[in-house]
Amino acid sequence: MNYKIVRYVLAQVLNIEGAFMIFPLITALIYGEEEGWSFILTGLLCFLFGFLLSHRRPKETVIYSREAFVTVAVSWILLSVMGSIPFIVTGCIPNPIDALFETVSGFTTTGASVLTEVESLPKSVLFWRSFTHWLGGMGVLVLLLAFLQVKGGTHMNLMKAESPGPSVSKLVPTVRSTAKILYLIYILLTVLQILFLLIGKMPLFDALTITFGTAGTGGFGIKNDSMAGYSPYLQVVVTVFMILFGVNFSAYFLILRRKFRQAFSMEEVRWYLLIIAASILSIALMILDLYPSFGEALRHSAFQVGSIITTTGYSTTDFNLWPAIPRTILVMLMFIGACAGSTGGGIKVSRILILCKAIRKELHLILHPRSVKKLKMDGHALDTEVIRSTSAFFVAYILFFSFSVLLVGVDDLDLVTNFTGVAATLNNIGPGLELVGPMGNFSVFSDFSTAILTLDMLAGRLEIFPLLLLFTRDTWRRK
Amino acid sequence: MNYKIVRYVLAQVLNIEGAFMIFPLITALIYGEEEGWSFILTGLLCFLFGFLLSHRRPKETVIYSREAFVTVAVSWILLSVMGSIPFIVTGCIPNPIDALFETVSGFTTTGASVLTEVESLPKSVLFWRSFTHWLGGMGVLVLLLAFLQVKGGTHMNLMKAESPGPSVSKLVPTVRSTAKILYLIYILLTVLQILFLLIGKMPLFDALTITFGTAGTGGFGIKNDSMAGYSPYLQVVVTVFMILFGVNFSAYFLILRRKFRQAFSMEEVRWYLLIIAASILSIALMILDLYPSFGEALRHSAFQVGSIITTTGYSTTDFNLWPAIPRTILVMLMFIGACAGSTGGGIKVSRILILCKAIRKELHLILHPRSVKKLKMDGHALDTEVIRSTSAFFVAYILFFSFSVLLVGVDDLDLVTNFTGVAATLNNIGPGLELVGPMGNFSVFSDFSTAILTLDMLAGRLEIFPLLLLFTRDTWRRK
Repeated sequence: MNYKIVRYVLAQVLNIEGAFMIFPLITALIYGEEEGWSFILTGLLCFLFGFLLSHRRPKETVIYSREAFVTVAVSWILLSVMGSIPFIVTGCIPNPIDALFETVSGFTTTGASVLTEVESLPKSVLFWRSFTHWLGGMGVLVLLLAFLQVKGGTHMNLMKAESPGPSVSKLVPTVRSTAKILYLIYILLTVLQILFLLIGKMPLFDALTITFGTAGTGGFGIKNDSMAGYSPYLQVVVTVFMILFGVNFSAYFLILRRKFRQAFSMEEVRWYLLIIAASILSIALMILDLYPSFGEALRHSAFQVGSIITTTGYSTTDFNLWPAIPRTILVMLMFIGACAGSTGGGIKVSRILILCKAIRKELHLILHPRSVKKLKMDGHALDTEVIRSTSAFFVAYILFFSFSVLLVGVDDLDLVTNFTGVAATLNNIGPGLELVGPMGNFSVFSDFSTAILTLDMLAGRLEIFPLLLLFTRDTWRRK
Repeated sequence: MNYKIVRYVLAQVLNIEGAFMIFPLITALIYGEEEGWSFILTGLLCFLFGFLLSHRRPKETVIYSREAFVTVAVSWILLSVMGSIPFIVTGCIPNPIDALFETVSGFTTTGASVLTEVESLPKSVLFWRSFTHWLGGMGVLVLLLAFLQVKGGTHMNLMKAESPGPSVSKLVPTVRSTAKILYLIYILLTVLQILFLLIGKMPLFDALTITFGTAGTGGFGIKNDSMAGYSPYLQVVVTVFMILFGVNFSAYFLILRRKFRQAFSMEEVRWYLLIIAASILSIALMILDLYPSFGEALRHSAFQVGSIITTTGYSTTDFNLWPAIPRTILVMLMFIGACAGSTGGGIKVSRILILCKAIRKELHLILHPRSVKKLKMDGHALDTEVIRSTSAFFVAYILFFSFSVLLVGVDDLDLVTNFTGVAATLNNIGPGLELVGPMGNFSVFSDFSTAILTLDMLAGRLEIFPLLLLFTRDTWRRK
C-alpha cells in the first residue's frame, strides 16, 4: 500500500470540496441568510485538513488497483463527513448521524431524507443539499482527473474504482480527456434541462436545484410533496431528463462524434429504453382507475418509472397506494437500475444483460456440452473476466442486501419498510414503500439503522467492493 | 433429441408410481375406508399410460445431458398429474389446480397446502399425501436407477439432472451402486426416526406420516396445528432428524466407511451446522419474552430453525408473531437451504460457500491483479465449470424468484405474503409469513397464482434449468 499517493489524492479531494463551498455561500449572500458562515467554516476546515494531509508529490505516482479502491472509498467517506458540517452547525439537522445520512444520501445521489419538512430550510442549505447530488453523480475523482494536474502514472484505476458498471473503458486514449468529455456532456445536459425548466416558468432557484437532483439522479426535492406541485409540462421535462441522465454516456459521446448508428445499436441502451417503455405502459393500464384520464395515468406512470429505474427518486404521486403489481414492478426497477456509465445507480442494465446471457449460455451447454460459445455484447466477445466479476458483484450485492435487511430489523418495523428501505438506499434511489414511501421518510429509523443505511448508500454508489476492501486485512499491508 | 429413450424411462416412472399405490390402498383396507378405490383407479391408469408410452428397449440407450434434463422435468410433471387423481376423485380437493398444487407440493417436498383443515381427511389420503414427500425426497429417477434394470449407456446424466447441488458425483464407481447406497442410507434413517417416535408413544400412523415428511424434508402435517400438539420429546426427535436429513448424504457414506475424519471435515456440513447453531441461539435470545422459560424458547427456536433451513416446514409455534429480526433470519435461512446431496431444498449451503469464495477471490484479484488463485473446497481445487454454473444458477434463481413475485401480485395481497409465498414454494419449504404463515395456508391465492406457485415448487426441486429447458426451442430439435 502506497500511503503517500493516497494522502496526496485525498488532500486534492478536500481542496475541491472546500472550493465548491463558494456556491452555497453565494446563495446565502443573495438571499441574505446568516447561515452563510457555515459554508465559510466548512470550506476553511476542508482546506485545513487538505493542507494537513497534503504531502509533497510522491515519487511513486502510479496508482495501482489497490490504492485506487482505497482512495475512492476513503474520499467518499471524507467528502460526506465534511459535507455534513453545514447541516449540523446551522441546526438544520442537529443529530450528526442523521446529518451524515443526509449528506451521504446527497453525494451518493440517493435522495433519501431524514427531514420531515424541507420548505422551511434556508435556501443556501437547500442549495448545498441538492448540489451534492450534482457533484456525486459524475464523481469527484473523475472531476479531479479532468481538471486538475495529476500527472504521471496511470490513473485509469481511479476512474475504474469510482465509475459504476461492469467494465469501465476510456472513450479516448487518455484518462484525462475521457474524464473531461464526460464532464462536458454532463454540464451540457445540465444546462439544457435548466433552460427547459426556465421556459416552463419555474423559478431559477427551483430550476437549479431540481436539475442538480435530476442530473445526478439524486432526488432531493425542495418541496415537501417532491414534484407533485409543479405543472404537467415541468413534470414531463423532468421525466425526459431523468431518463436521459440514465443513458450510458458513451452513447452521447458517439452521437457527438456523429456515429449515430453505433449509438442507437448499443444493446444496453436499447434494453434500457425497452424496459422503460414496457413498464410505463403496463403500469399506466393498471392504475387507470386511480386517475381521471389515461393521459394523467400515463404521465404519473412515466414519471415514477423514469424516477425509479434511473434511481432518481422524485415523485409526483404516492405510488405506495398503487396495486401490488405496479408496486412490484417498481421494486424490480429499483434493482435493475440505469445504464452503466450513467449517473444512475442500481445493478445496471448491462450487468443484468450479461447475467442473462450467462444463463442462456448455461442452457446451451446443457444441450451441447462440448460446444464452445462466447458471450457477446454489442457484437464483441465479452471478457471472461468481466463475466466472472459481474457474477461476483451480483452475489456480493445480494448478500450485502440481505444482511442489511437483517440488521435494520432491530427497529422492528414492518418487513416491507425494511426491505424497500434497504433497496432504496443500496440502489441509491430514495423512496421505498410503506413508512419510507414517497410520502414518508427515513426519520423512522433508529440511529443504528440509519448508520447501516448510510453504509448501504456508500456501498451502492461505489459498487460494494471498495467498501469491502476497507475491511480486508490484506489491503492495509505495506508492500 | 432421442425421444425413444425418453418414452422408455417415462413408462418406467409411471409403472413405479402405479406400484406404490399399494401402500395407501393397504391403509384404506386397514381403516376400512371406501376411498381405497381411488388408489386402485390411479394405479391402473398409471400402468395403462405406462403401457401406452412403453416402447421396446431402444437401440440407442445412451442418455445424454439433453435427454436427461427433459426426462426428469417431464417425469416430475407426469408423476404429479397422476398423483393428484386420488385427491380429485375422492372429493378431498375437488379443484384440479389445487389438487395438482398439493401433489406437486408433496413430491417436491415443499409441504405447502391449500387445505384449511386436514384432520377430517381419510387416513389413506393423508398417507398418500405424506408418502409423496418420501418418494420425492431422494428422487424417483434415483430410485429407478437403484432398483430397476436400466442397462447400457451412462445414466449419470439422469442422476445429475434430478439430484440437487452444484456438482453431483458418484460415491462409488457405478451409478447404480451409488443410487442404491443413497436409498439404503435414506431407508436406514427413516426406520431409525420411526423407532424413536414410537418410543415416545406416538401412534404408528402418525409416526409413519411424520417421518415421511421429515425424511423428504417435506412438512405435510396430519394435524391442523402441525407439530404443536406433540410432546416436547417428540418435537426434539423431529428437530434432530430434520437436521440429519439436511446433511449431505456423502457424509453418512463416509461414516459408514469409517472415514470419520473426512466426514467431519466436510466444509459444507461444518458451515451448515454452524449456521444452524448460530441461528438457534440468537433467535432463542430474541424470543425469550414470548415463552415462559429459556428452555422452551430454545426448543421452539431449534425446531423452527431446523424446519426452515432444511426446508421441511413443520412448525411448533406461530413464528409469524416473532419480532422482525428472528423473522428475517428465518427468511434468510429459507434461501440458504440445506446441504447439497441431502433431501432438503433452497440454494444449498455449498453453493453459498462457493459464491462467497468467489467474492473473496474477486477482492484478492483487486489487490493482486496478476495473481492466480484457485478456489478450493474440502482441500480440492474447484472446477471453473462448477463456479460458472453455480453463478448462473444463482442469477437464474433470483430472476425466477422476482418474476414469480411479480406474477402472484395479480391477487393484490400484501407484499410480504407474495414475497414469502414464493420464497416458501421456490425453496420447497411450505409456510411463509403473513397470510401463508404457519397458521395460514395457500388457499388464499387465485387459480392463476396457484399455478405459478406450482411451477415454482417444481423449479425449486429440479433447480430451475430442467424447467427452463422445456421452454427452449433448441431442446426439441431432432438430431
